[in-house]
Amino acid sequence: MENHSTTTMPLTSDLPNKKQTVCIFGTGDFGRSLGHKMIQCGYTIVYGSRNPKNSKLIPQGATVLPHAEAAETSDIIIIAIPRIHYATLERLKETLDGKVLVDVSNNLKINQYPESNAEYLAQLFPESKVVKAFNTVSAWALQSGALDASRQVFVCGNDSKAKEKVIDIVRSLGLTPLDKGSLLAAKEIEDYPLQLFPMWKYSIYLSLGLTAFLFIYCLIRDVVYRYITENKDISFFIAITIPNRICPIVALILLGLVYLPGIFAAILQLYRGTKYRRFPDWLDKWMLCRKQLGLVALAFAFLHVLFTLVIPIRYYVRWRSDSYLLQQVFKNKTDSFRTDYAWLSDSYLAFGILGFFLFLLLGITSLPSVANSVNWREFRFVQSYLGYLTVVLCTAHTLIYGGSRFLYATSYPWGLPPAYIFSLIIPCIVLVIKFVLIFPCIDRPLTAIRQGWERKPKDLSEPQNLSGSSV
Amino acid sequence: MENHSTTTMPLTSDLPNKKQTVCIFGTGDFGRSLGHKMIQCGYTIVYGSRNPKNSKLIPQGATVLPHAEAAETSDIIIIAIPRIHYATLERLKETLDGKVLVDVSNNLKINQYPESNAEYLAQLFPESKVVKAFNTVSAWALQSGALDASRQVFVCGNDSKAKEKVIDIVRSLGLTPLDKGSLLAAKEIEDYPLQLFPMWKYSIYLSLGLTAFLFIYCLIRDVVYRYITENKDISFFIAITIPNRICPIVALILLGLVYLPGIFAAILQLYRGTKYRRFPDWLDKWMLCRKQLGLVALAFAFLHVLFTLVIPIRYYVRWRSDSYLLQQVFKNKTDSFRTDYAWLSDSYLAFGILGFFLFLLLGITSLPSVANSVNWREFRFVQSYLGYLTVVLCTAHTLIYGGSRFLYATSYPWGLPPAYIFSLIIPCIVLVIKFVLIFPCIDRPLTAIRQGWERKPKDLSEPQNLSGSSV
Amino acid sequence: MENHSTTTMPLTSDLPNKKQTVCIFGTGDFGRSLGHKMIQCGYTIVYGSRNPKNSKLIPQGATVLPHAEAAETSDIIIIAIPRIHYATLERLKETLDGKVLVDVSNNLKINQYPESNAEYLAQLFPESKVVKAFNTVSAWALQSGALDASRQVFVCGNDSKAKEKVIDIVRSLGLTPLDKGSLLAAKEIEDYPLQLFPMWKYSIYLSLGLTAFLFIYCLIRDVVYRYITENKDISFFIAITIPNRICPIVALILLGLVYLPGIFAAILQLYRGTKYRRFPDWLDKWMLCRKQLGLVALAFAFLHVLFTLVIPIRYYVRWRSDSYLLQQVFKNKTDSFRTDYAWLSDSYLAFGILGFFLFLLLGITSLPSVANSVNWREFRFVQSYLGYLTVVLCTAHTLIYGGSRFLYATSYPWGLPPAYIFSLIIPCIVLVIKFVLIFPCIDRPLTAIRQGWERKPKDLSEPQNLSGSSV
Repeated sequence: MENHSTTTMPLTSDLPNKKQTVCIFGTGDFGRSLGHKMIQCGYTIVYGSRNPKNSKLIPQGATVLPHAEAAETSDIIIIAIPRIHYATLERLKETLDGKVLVDVSNNLKINQYPESNAEYLAQLFPESKVVKAFNTVSAWALQSGALDASRQVFVCGNDSKAKEKVIDIVRSLGLTPLDKGSLLAAKEIEDYPLQLFPMWKYSIYLSLGLTAFLFIYCLIRDVVYRYITENKDISFFIAITIPNRICPIVALILLGLVYLPGIFAAILQLYRGTKYRRFPDWLDKWMLCRKQLGLVALAFAFLHVLFTLVIPIRYYVRWRSDSYLLQQVFKNKTDSFRTDYAWLSDSYLAFGILGFFLFLLLGITSLPSVANSVNWREFRFVQSYLGYLTVVLCTAHTLIYGGSRFLYATSYPWGLPPAYIFSLIIPCIVLVIKFVLIFPCIDRPLTAIRQGWERKPKDLSEPQNLSGSSV
Repeated sequence: MENHSTTTMPLTSDLPNKKQTVCIFGTGDFGRSLGHKMIQCGYTIVYGSRNPKNSKLIPQGATVLPHAEAAETSDIIIIAIPRIHYATLERLKETLDGKVLVDVSNNLKINQYPESNAEYLAQLFPESKVVKAFNTVSAWALQSGALDASRQVFVCGNDSKAKEKVIDIVRSLGLTPLDKGSLLAAKEIEDYPLQLFPMWKYSIYLSLGLTAFLFIYCLIRDVVYRYITENKDISFFIAITIPNRICPIVALILLGLVYLPGIFAAILQLYRGTKYRRFPDWLDKWMLCRKQLGLVALAFAFLHVLFTLVIPIRYYVRWRSDSYLLQQVFKNKTDSFRTDYAWLSDSYLAFGILGFFLFLLLGITSLPSVANSVNWREFRFVQSYLGYLTVVLCTAHTLIYGGSRFLYATSYPWGLPPAYIFSLIIPCIVLVIKFVLIFPCIDRPLTAIRQGWERKPKDLSEPQNLSGSSV
Repeated sequence: MENHSTTTMPLTSDLPNKKQTVCIFGTGDFGRSLGHKMIQCGYTIVYGSRNPKNSKLIPQGATVLPHAEAAETSDIIIIAIPRIHYATLERLKETLDGKVLVDVSNNLKINQYPESNAEYLAQLFPESKVVKAFNTVSAWALQSGALDASRQVFVCGNDSKAKEKVIDIVRSLGLTPLDKGSLLAAKEIEDYPLQLFPMWKYSIYLSLGLTAFLFIYCLIRDVVYRYITENKDISFFIAITIPNRICPIVALILLGLVYLPGIFAAILQLYRGTKYRRFPDWLDKWMLCRKQLGLVALAFAFLHVLFTLVIPIRYYVRWRSDSYLLQQVFKNKTDSFRTDYAWLSDSYLAFGILGFFLFLLLGITSLPSVANSVNWREFRFVQSYLGYLTVVLCTAHTLIYGGSRFLYATSYPWGLPPAYIFSLIIPCIVLVIKFVLIFPCIDRPLTAIRQGWERKPKDLSEPQNLSGSSV
């Protein structure tokens, strides 16, 4: 029981004798929540407010004074008012000289102002020591004590003594301070809490789009076609059969898209004969999304594995296999064993299993803590060699699955080809071009270009100048 | 081969010329192990001991002197004696003035003393620079070199120069120093190695209790009932059938318990009209355990998945399906295909697969390194939206599994309802109340309360005062 | 869209007014790439070169001057030339006095030189402030902007002001600086990018060797034997049946090897009566590889799970079960249900599932971020108690799988025993010895030895001296 209380209110017991007074400007939600938490942890809180008499909602135990008087009580002043009101504090300039001002503000959108709020505050009060902190913690989290999310508090500032003081407060509230350096880092810190998976957007929208398209395609090709031509209701395919057709296709397309930009980049570098020119913007962005594309692909592959493994449990599958068997019985004939079928079935599954296993390995290596514990050489080895091996295995898995199926007319109801064919286009392109690129006669100049040691000397003097003037 | 030696004995090769002398007070296990390791890494070690002549067990290469003489030899003194003997060192006060004292002590239980050992040492020797370090490393780990566990050494202290020196020693022993700030952090550092999954206790005990109850319940309802009424021995159900019935129930109950406290909190806030009053203690603790509850639930869900996927491999299942088929043959009749069965079977499985997939996503996001790389907004999005979607999918999975089963009298041997019904109670309560809470007329005031901007003005003046006097 | 640009070119917008000039010595690949990136981020770059007129390839916007003149322009000089040319800079000693020299060099192999490059540079320029940085970032990564791998830049140096300046540059390039302390850490930092999974080598080679041996063994025993004696082609066993036989064997052998060195260490400590003597080198190295052995074992266990779960989907398995059923039909007889078979089949699967589940838990705890968030006591609990439980469960799984199979002559084609028997040797040895070791009469002295509090007093005086002279 006691352990818990140490987590929620650390160091309370041995603090009373060194109760420090901290001043908070602003009695808004965040100011109140932070003050409440600090009082719990043994601090004395003095609020600075424009009209102290109307500030009824301040936490129990705190006092409210006008700004100037409040500022007198403490060396550390937490500025919990919106940026637009910073300028109104300028009349307190002399009082605030030499004091530590903690900027806790957040913006409503990224790049709202040219400079960060903390840098703006530092410009207004050049004689004060501005420290950016606490903006990544939500008022709700402070209030409820339920800090299951990140307990990290990014701190930055130009004065290291001032930073130390703020870091000590952060720590005594049970949060984890993370020193991000000088006030230069304030912009990054302020942008941080505004993001909602910015890098994931493209990958997720793309995969959802693909899923929707393929769902409708399969619905028409399988369910609607059967219903119209044979008047057979197989709408229950929507639950598992069709998802299990869509998932591997989306996974393989996305996996191909992870390696396609690398191919483009190599071709571009070979063509330009230099690596010292920027890639076009779309290629740059695409390359930055590769990790997310790969992880979304892994998620679809995982769903495909689960959907496949439940196949023998499904009522439909059991009924079909039973009724086939009963037909054999009633016709009094037996299928003989075909080794080629056994080979196809087993190698198809084996390629899929190995491909999924390597894919999972790639996913684990991209976990932040694992990625940080490998160096560049190791990361390249895993993501490049194992990555291509994954593409090869998964493509082989799909090719064997397809088998000679695409040759029969029955595979083209209403002329629509089986959906799995779509998934093969990009990976096959990637593998064919990659295969060309690893030929020694092409690999050698490419490696040289990437190491920066060599390039095409004849064309170079000219394009270099051209690129010089165009950049 | 060389790489390994650098890992075990880093920097040995280039240290001999700057061999530093370090003094260790105390020749107990930890003092000896640490000294041994430091000698291996090129340090000169002088032990301080009460009776130097009897200290036979010190590591090869170290010297033993009386405390005072030993202290003269070095600027850094590692205090490897129990806290209760700290006071006996007070006679050395003058010798130790200005020196770096490294407190490596641990306590036997949490909150054993009012202040941390390091702070106590600092009080005894105000003129020395006390640094807390090494307490998280075990003597056994130092000795065996097998530091597969955390290589982290938490370091804290008020004097940054002194801290730097200790951090350099930590690093030269091949360990990872982690600066935790001022001596204020010593208590937390000392409590750290004493914990044995403090946050996990409730969740694990609860799940074990539930498992035991459900095991006995299913044993009686299925195995014992069949044995008594039909004299049929199906005791082998204990191995897989019953566990596979228990696991999803425990998982779903725990998942419900993850979201129930949030519901309580919302109701309490709506009722109080403010978020500025603390939740009752039990609710606070419950909310802090949610992550652990969720992960234990995920473990049970994972077991459920494995137990389900092996179903078609089980001898019992294969025999049952074969004998059913043979009955059909001998009776010369065939079951016709029923689309409604196919729908139920497939949608039941599909909901389960999607629910498990989202559940796994939630689990991955709660890995420390992943949770630290998302901001508060992203964390809320995943844990709240995806979390509720998981509850919905898993509840639907169970409802469809149950189907109309609960209507038949055969489902109530000895009047006992099927066990799965227990698992539905909490998630259904959570979902129903949550559904009510997202109605705009209730959601709007709740959001306002949580943002702190609005509250019920008429009731406020009074309960605020009441709460003020009661807190 | 804007979010992305902040990631690739952070802080560009608000930097122009504080454009700092940085000097780079050397116009090789890394110097150019770094300069290019820094220009993008708003720095002014001046290159120092031996023959400035021939340096055509420098990035657009930079200027090239002779070394001495270039050095005048900035307080920070990035030394991007090979270590062998450091001495040629000695003539600039006076110009470089007091300046920050950033060593970005890497070596070609580990321990190439007695001291690190940065320390060598510091010896050459004792009046300059040498900081080690940037060596872990590849030129290609800087160029392409595709920093999906570690963005970490290790920084170390003796002058903290100088280090701060370099850390600010690192941060403004969108990289993550990691302060590793004094220049003492330079050697470790320089060795870092040269490693290619050094700790994994033994485990991976061992597992590949075992796999190759078992593959040939199973191929001969099953496929070749059947082909020669019965002229039956079951070569398709290569795809799934044989891998699924190999994977669990390799997994169990490796799992046994994880716990075997601990057994050896305990016996050695009991025999020696002390823990204060080093283990033989092979045992030390073995113990350091345990984590990797365990994770490779987990990978094989995972493959075994996947291979097992697809069994009911395989054409061969379905055909075999169908044809067996048809035989029953045509013979008009039914197999009666055997409870003992059901027990064996279910308990075999249940042990496997629980063993795999615990194994996975062990794997998750060894993720860096999870391992760092548990303390020594928790880590020992998981890895030791849960680890042995895993060995017990997996051994039981294999024993029940084997069952009485090893008694029949048909299990020994050409006298070759079933492969699974190999996998039982090591785990059984481990479990038997461990069972002996936990007897109180043996456990008590061992625990005492490991705590360092007790040892055999009679033998001690002698071996201690012996060890003293031999070490």
